[in-house]
Amino acid sequence: MHSIKADYIDHIAIALNNIEEAEQLYEEVLGFKVKHRETIEDQRVKTSMLVSEQRGTSIELLEPIDGDSPISKFLKKGGEGVHHICLAVRDIESALENLKNKNIELIDEKPRTGANGSRVAFIHPRDMHGILIELAEFPKK
Amino acid sequence: MHSIKADYIDHIAIALNNIEEAEQLYEEVLGFKVKHRETIEDQRVKTSMLVSEQRGTSIELLEPIDGDSPISKFLKKGGEGVHHICLAVRDIESALENLKNKNIELIDEKPRTGANGSRVAFIHPRDMHGILIELAEFPKK
Repeated sequence: MHSIKADYIDHIAIALNNIEEAEQLYEEVLGFKVKHRETIEDQRVKTSMLVSEQRGTSIELLEPIDGDSPISKFLKKGGEGVHHICLAVRDIESALENLKNKNIELIDEKPRTGANGSRVAFIHPRDMHGILIELAEFPKK
Repeated sequence: MHSIKADYIDHIAIALNNIEEAEQLYEEVLGFKVKHRETIEDQRVKTSMLVSEQRGTSIELLEPIDGDSPISKFLKKGGEGVHHICLAVRDIESALENLKNKNIELIDEKPRTGANGSRVAFIHPRDMHGILIELAEFPKK
């Protein structure tokens, strides 16, 4: 059976305690630029997306708004670090169907709404060598 | 003072126990393709670089050859997961000089030889919100 054909790595998400401090580090020290900020209420999380000179894969910073956020639990367990990697796909429903047929464990069986009008779903890290992978389908331009 | 102007995210490196199994997952399930394999003797590590359909940022798989590898220590401590993020820079000496002047803690004060003829140096995760960042300067084409 064919693969889900990940198109590109959209972003690497980093969980941390202070998004303003981290933005300053990525901008002033490493030379990234903020391209988008968004609060995702149902995940209780503030996000900031940063791009490097040549753009391509972004860095997403994640700070929990309160203790109910999954990011808050992540930070309590292991501290600041990479939270997930997001792969862009062209058709998220068929990608999820494909993975189900291969018995890959999914966190989201159906897509939900992500940042920037995307539709997203997470694959369980158990089948992915410990990496939490997000699949995202972005609106056609 | 200006930033180091990271050009692009070259790769995300993942530490794991079985590189053949992981290659199979990334190729057959996610649709990446192996573009380069290399054993880095002084790090006691086997590496495999994989690209998605649109190329851009790669995934680097890392498996320790023996117990002396830093990757072996990483796996014992926290299990499989993201090991580092590599940022491409145009001039690694001036990037390291720039970071030293900002009192950012470096693991490598001078570049050493990395995969594919690159010159690389690591920044300490302490000043990077827990993320191990590799800087790499690639040979001019």
